[in-house]
Amino acid sequence: MAVRKHRIVIVGGGFGGLAAAKALRHADADIVLIDRRNHHLFQPLLYQVATAALGPSEIAWPIRHLLRKQSNVRVLMATIVGVDTDKQDVLLEDGSAEPYDSLVLATGAQHAYFGHDEWEAFAPGLKTVEDATAIRRKLLLALEAAEREADPARRRALLTFAIIGAGPTGVEMAGAIVELGHASIRGQFNTIAPHDLRVVLIEGGERVLPNFDPELSRYTLEALRRTGIEVEMGRMVSSIDADGVSFGDRRVDARTIIWAAGVAASPVARWLGIEGDRAGRIRVAPDLSVPGLPNIFVIGDVASIIQANGRPVPGVAPAAKQAGRHVAHVLRDRLAGKDASLPFRYQHAGDLATIGRSSAVIDFGRVKLKGWIAWWVWGFAHIYFLVETRTRIFITLSWLWIYLTGQRSARLITHGMVPENKPLEAGDET
Amino acid sequence: MAVRKHRIVIVGGGFGGLAAAKALRHADADIVLIDRRNHHLFQPLLYQVATAALGPSEIAWPIRHLLRKQSNVRVLMATIVGVDTDKQDVLLEDGSAEPYDSLVLATGAQHAYFGHDEWEAFAPGLKTVEDATAIRRKLLLALEAAEREADPARRRALLTFAIIGAGPTGVEMAGAIVELGHASIRGQFNTIAPHDLRVVLIEGGERVLPNFDPELSRYTLEALRRTGIEVEMGRMVSSIDADGVSFGDRRVDARTIIWAAGVAASPVARWLGIEGDRAGRIRVAPDLSVPGLPNIFVIGDVASIIQANGRPVPGVAPAAKQAGRHVAHVLRDRLAGKDASLPFRYQHAGDLATIGRSSAVIDFGRVKLKGWIAWWVWGFAHIYFLVETRTRIFITLSWLWIYLTGQRSARLITHGMVPENKPLEAGDET
Repeated sequence: MAVRKHRIVIVGGGFGGLAAAKALRHADADIVLIDRRNHHLFQPLLYQVATAALGPSEIAWPIRHLLRKQSNVRVLMATIVGVDTDKQDVLLEDGSAEPYDSLVLATGAQHAYFGHDEWEAFAPGLKTVEDATAIRRKLLLALEAAEREADPARRRALLTFAIIGAGPTGVEMAGAIVELGHASIRGQFNTIAPHDLRVVLIEGGERVLPNFDPELSRYTLEALRRTGIEVEMGRMVSSIDADGVSFGDRRVDARTIIWAAGVAASPVARWLGIEGDRAGRIRVAPDLSVPGLPNIFVIGDVASIIQANGRPVPGVAPAAKQAGRHVAHVLRDRLAGKDASLPFRYQHAGDLATIGRSSAVIDFGRVKLKGWIAWWVWGFAHIYFLVETRTRIFITLSWLWIYLTGQRSARLITHGMVPENKPLEAGDET
Repeated sequence: MAVRKHRIVIVGGGFGGLAAAKALRHADADIVLIDRRNHHLFQPLLYQVATAALGPSEIAWPIRHLLRKQSNVRVLMATIVGVDTDKQDVLLEDGSAEPYDSLVLATGAQHAYFGHDEWEAFAPGLKTVEDATAIRRKLLLALEAAEREADPARRRALLTFAIIGAGPTGVEMAGAIVELGHASIRGQFNTIAPHDLRVVLIEGGERVLPNFDPELSRYTLEALRRTGIEVEMGRMVSSIDADGVSFGDRRVDARTIIWAAGVAASPVARWLGIEGDRAGRIRVAPDLSVPGLPNIFVIGDVASIIQANGRPVPGVAPAAKQAGRHVAHVLRDRLAGKDASLPFRYQHAGDLATIGRSSAVIDFGRVKLKGWIAWWVWGFAHIYFLVETRTRIFITLSWLWIYLTGQRSARLITHGMVPENKPLEAGDET
């Protein structure tokens, strides 16, 4: 009788889950990677899809494809609804169960609205391909509507783009919207001009890019303002509706509002029947296992890890990848009969953010870069970290094209348009 | 007082409308191009988006962008609901009106189900970017579901793809699905193999590619069958439901059905209050104007034109472009005070269709090509007719990549998936 192999279930095909699966390529185990989506998404460039610089398929790849050469992994596109820690089963939405000996939960985070879920309808966040194309549609439709709007106040609200949250995503979105607006408006619209565009970046804290060195925050603030972006700091958002956003004693009338302020972990705590922190994350043991459940590991944006210096491990892609590789290491040790539970040590590589065309800031700790040199380093770093040769070539070319011509290729408005020229009897596909 | 310029309204930014606008670039007129979408779509390659070879933004471009250098054109993204031929107004959905002196209607066609609109839900057609990504999603989700299906009959239905209609679109879809299936399945799925895939092409007539030379039809039929595609001819479809399609005395259980059989013109006849033909098209005068309405022209898939040889002008891109340029010519003559109404003469360039990897047929009339040489000619012809330099570069590279590696880049399943890892309280964006 064949000996049953050790079964490892990894839930989530983001940076953490994928890194864990890949680092287990030589492991003598049956690995199942479950994701409700068929693709791995390179989230750091998602804002470029939202602003029409890249198409979705340039930053997303089928997980099956990425793992096609790894024979010990099975990929399952399925939605999980819970974990039975007694039976050691992952419960799937269709009623079936996937048994595990070891479980890695890497299901990531979603945007969260600090208890104001009603804001989501007016201020979408940016986590998925659909989020990005929805925001792209909103941005481009606002310009189209402004072109036809005669009323000055309504026209101004249509041309005002408010971004809430001045972390890297908010800063990058703000800069990219200015670029998109200028590239799209010049010569292509009749009643609106590039300088009609108004971008307001709203931050509750006292500085932009709060995780960066204060000197880089100051530099970024100046660079943003030089680009014409209005930066509002020190006031928390108090309400968002279809017409605009209020923060403190201020109000901005904006028909397009983008949420880049907060995230919450996926409901792993509920699945495991344990207590999560305020953002839903799970406080893990030093080896990244769940206290009391040594064969379950939690990594990436669902894990809360405090480093030796007292600071939390940030919710960034390199941290998730390192954690994925760490868990693979622990599992390989255990499969080899070693009992050592290595503690995870996060290596901070640095923080990067672009501020529109030809400007960026990079905080490598001791080395700090800003301006055009940081922008080039940022570009090369991102191309280097992309997962596929094809993508590296195509994104390099896409960026080069935009850099040389200013033309953004992906300015498509799809879905959610009223159908016109269809015969009345035909059904509607939106 | 400035003299008011002649106002030309063009409705539709497809091949016909765009060609008309471009051919009027030196006209001393105020031109408005209205489309309910913001983009021009290169429909001949839409099946490649549906089968994940290209991303949507590789074959669609903002109309504003394409006309950015033409100062006498204003582009309006709007939905039209009618034409007031007395007041000479195009009526828009928002209640406003766009006045015209001359009107060009080029609103194209939609798939039509021969009075069985209930079939659309089960057998989507391929006309828009959304149609293509919806079909792509269906194809890829069927493979994912088959991977998890234990019941052999249901598994077989999931792996069966039925295409209705064996014109160029149907033939190209069938070939591309085989390619997509093979490229996606090999090494990437555990329970399904490439030869499990079943593609059935259903044609009511007696041969595939009925508009081509019979010898090329025969060749295509053999080539399709050699690829493993089942071709069923001579039986009309009698019913389509969620589980399959019936035609004559036969039935195919298929969970994915694609409609490539019929189109109907957009409701131009209704807007003008005149009678259309059975497919809703308008029989136009030799100069492409509407009989009795000499300042209104109808071109492309909404026009019915019988050539001197008694054959109708086909509903293909070159015909629409030629008609657009012809109308521009007539309008320029009229603006110059000439009264001549040139009759339109269609120049048939040829018919082309691919039959999967490295095989195609081309009917140039006297010259007929088939096999790999036709495939290369087909590729170069399509790259030549693309509207933008950037696109030419990127599509050439995309195709080269697929040709060399077999990897299709755009295998993303987006929209319409059940959300999993979101906090329960958050809204759902699909």
